[in-house]
Amino acid sequence: MSEQKKKLVEAITPINEDFTQWYTDVCLKAELVDYSTVKGCMILRPYGYAIWENITHILDGMFKATGHENVAMPIFIPESLLQKEKDHVEGFAPEVAWVTYGGTEKLEERMCVRPTSETLFCDHFAHVLHSWRDLPMKYNQWCSVVRWEKTTRPFLRSREFWWQEGHTIHETAEEAKQETEQQLNTYADFCENYLMIPVVKGKKTDKEKFAGAEATYTIEAMMHDGKALQSGTSHYFGDGFSRAFNVQFTGRDNTLQYPHQTSWGVSTRLIGAIIMTHGDDEGLILPPAIAPFQVVIVPVAAHKPGVTEKAEELAARVSKFARVKLDNSDNSPGWKFSQWEMKGVPLRLEIGPKDIEKNQCVLVRRDTREKYFVSLDDLETEIPRLLNELAQNIYNRALENRENRTWSATTMDEVKELAEKNNGYIKTMWCGDLACEEKMKEEVGLSSRCMPFEQEHISDVCPCCGKPANLMVYWGKAY
Amino acid sequence: MSEQKKKLVEAITPINEDFTQWYTDVCLKAELVDYSTVKGCMILRPYGYAIWENITHILDGMFKATGHENVAMPIFIPESLLQKEKDHVEGFAPEVAWVTYGGTEKLEERMCVRPTSETLFCDHFAHVLHSWRDLPMKYNQWCSVVRWEKTTRPFLRSREFWWQEGHTIHETAEEAKQETEQQLNTYADFCENYLMIPVVKGKKTDKEKFAGAEATYTIEAMMHDGKALQSGTSHYFGDGFSRAFNVQFTGRDNTLQYPHQTSWGVSTRLIGAIIMTHGDDEGLILPPAIAPFQVVIVPVAAHKPGVTEKAEELAARVSKFARVKLDNSDNSPGWKFSQWEMKGVPLRLEIGPKDIEKNQCVLVRRDTREKYFVSLDDLETEIPRLLNELAQNIYNRALENRENRTWSATTMDEVKELAEKNNGYIKTMWCGDLACEEKMKEEVGLSSRCMPFEQEHISDVCPCCGKPANLMVYWGKAY
Repeated sequence: MSEQKKKLVEAITPINEDFTQWYTDVCLKAELVDYSTVKGCMILRPYGYAIWENITHILDGMFKATGHENVAMPIFIPESLLQKEKDHVEGFAPEVAWVTYGGTEKLEERMCVRPTSETLFCDHFAHVLHSWRDLPMKYNQWCSVVRWEKTTRPFLRSREFWWQEGHTIHETAEEAKQETEQQLNTYADFCENYLMIPVVKGKKTDKEKFAGAEATYTIEAMMHDGKALQSGTSHYFGDGFSRAFNVQFTGRDNTLQYPHQTSWGVSTRLIGAIIMTHGDDEGLILPPAIAPFQVVIVPVAAHKPGVTEKAEELAARVSKFARVKLDNSDNSPGWKFSQWEMKGVPLRLEIGPKDIEKNQCVLVRRDTREKYFVSLDDLETEIPRLLNELAQNIYNRALENRENRTWSATTMDEVKELAEKNNGYIKTMWCGDLACEEKMKEEVGLSSRCMPFEQEHISDVCPCCGKPANLMVYWGKAY
Repeated sequence: MSEQKKKLVEAITPINEDFTQWYTDVCLKAELVDYSTVKGCMILRPYGYAIWENITHILDGMFKATGHENVAMPIFIPESLLQKEKDHVEGFAPEVAWVTYGGTEKLEERMCVRPTSETLFCDHFAHVLHSWRDLPMKYNQWCSVVRWEKTTRPFLRSREFWWQEGHTIHETAEEAKQETEQQLNTYADFCENYLMIPVVKGKKTDKEKFAGAEATYTIEAMMHDGKALQSGTSHYFGDGFSRAFNVQFTGRDNTLQYPHQTSWGVSTRLIGAIIMTHGDDEGLILPPAIAPFQVVIVPVAAHKPGVTEKAEELAARVSKFARVKLDNSDNSPGWKFSQWEMKGVPLRLEIGPKDIEKNQCVLVRRDTREKYFVSLDDLETEIPRLLNELAQNIYNRALENRENRTWSATTMDEVKELAEKNNGYIKTMWCGDLACEEKMKEEVGLSSRCMPFEQEHISDVCPCCGKPANLMVYWGKAY
């Protein structure tokens, strides 16, 4: 047995014993990533990249269906360009990588590797925007960005990560606000209906919003351990960047005007969300929509006559309606079962001599590990049905976990008691003061996740200061 | 009329008057790129990016069909990693961008932004390769890379460009050589059958090969002005990098062995090749396979009853078998004709009240500007037929240009006379000495393009030194 195999069959850390170690084990043993000698940067291995590819294809289709176009902006931002918007540079300058030499020559002006590209898009908009007829410009870019993080973890926080960043400009504030909302809804739709991850939609507090934005909207997902993961954000900028970068157009009334702007992004972080929402002690569980393989076929007693041929025939048949992998390697069936469970393939199809005799196969669901004896005549209906059931079930489990871990509180004592007992969302009213938000962090270790769109009335006062409060906030620990 | 429109309808520089200026005009006026304030970097605008997207989709399918998997490597290379292979670092160190600071902290070791990723792939291979059973590893990456060029031109030479880089390791030298050849053939197939650009396949001389490679193979295309464009390369490394990076595996005989390696790449340069091979005085001419829109529908007398409705109906119909754009903007038909000709859309479909009466439309081919009156009953057959004819015609024109500009020579006087008269390929024998290759550059300004796989016997001696020579080389001026 090779080194690699030995590593794989060693059990991973149990999920409820040490969630952090479990997560790292799954990332490595499902062969999603490799650490690189480039400190804080990760390598997306073929299996991890295939998941990202599936995510990008679906989202790209959604963006295009709503009239967005892809572009590619430069990888570098000259320092003077980064500095044009005051809040933005304050937020990002401390965490960028600086290029100071080109070959052997020192640069006259240093440039950072983009941490996000608002400044580059604005610079371009100023170039190409002329009249209200050119609006809206609805652009998106697929790329990697760099942020100089101190502590890093695969998918969740790394110095380089892959993402998409949408950047749009509009004639009116109203239209830009609609775009911000539409894109947040697209992200929520994608998470809930493709990744099977329930999310809470809401607005970030001023403390938590994007550097330079007027408003930041977020989708927050809850992980298996009750911690929150900010999974996508959509920002409304008003005309702040437009003014800073002198982006102007001739309006319908022939006056020069500043367009209103949005940006929005999701990243490879979503893969972290998938792992931590759906995984179990056997490893990854992948939502069918983004699984590189939806079905893995494992021949049993493959040396017996006719088994390999039948497995190949089934693979060809299944490939017409699902992404399928035939594992005809010389490993034992038991070893294959573990390997593909670790990799989270939604359905396993086992086929052996006895099954062939009975014109049946065994289908095993990854989420429940339930076995189904299915007639070979029914694969075209049974496989899609079981994939759908699995998808619905992992969504329901995630939703149940979130419901079991969401509590209301009206006093700081209650908040503290709940937070000490378990991770989860704690809902309270909030007066809107930064001081109370900071107190919640210092005293209880909770950050505001969002002010959800679906507001509830829990009490009349802020539990921190006792002043009247009519905003309801979700608090939690976050990745 | 807005500024942007004014710029567009100004005539571009005639192609045979100033080819360089014509090229720049087309890049900008067809809205493929924008210059950015980041010196030497380009912006791919939606139309340019859409071409690149179509290129990547086709190539990605070809790579996957031959068993390659996509991955993502880090964007940075620590200096010590870049230095591990001696020839490689000598070739690339002078032209890389160096990151020296992360936030406010000076890095202990500086890192460059990848100019190419052999070193990163080797580092990863050393991590994940164990046994011969893990081989071959056939990886590909879509990304941008940075090379600190002094003079830049859109698509042809810029500090950042987008590309794919394939990196594979194999058990035997034989298998790696086959991979190198297969990928070169894939590139040639793609250029000839999708981009409709004829190419010469051959081997680079030692002087022109990739830094660190044992052998570099190339496809060379000839542009409208007779200059050559290296359009794709495939490298065979032997086990040089494996040894430098200590990449090893346990062989079938249980001994530790070094795998044999390849890499291969094409880039956004291909868009430069498309422009300079097929374009004309009206602008771009796009091969149908990669055109963002294969057909543009322009309603004529759109204010007349029924015209807009008919145009919309036709757009819906054509969208079932071709990428179609309905231009229902309020510009004049004449202005639309120029705009879409500039953008190189292969077919224009005009529909007006008289056409509707006769149950016909007008189709206009971009390459010949010929008009076809086509019954509306025949669109499903006539549009694909005309697209095919256009594709074949632009290929033939490019081939004819190359044939008209390819000459043989047996003496230096002949070479000089030919080179002074015109740009093109000059075929001569070559003794294999670097001195003669350098002389050809210094005295005649020609570089060796390749030693073509299809060798010819032109004479018995090298025209430079008079020594016996049995290698035939294509010489030319190159972008």
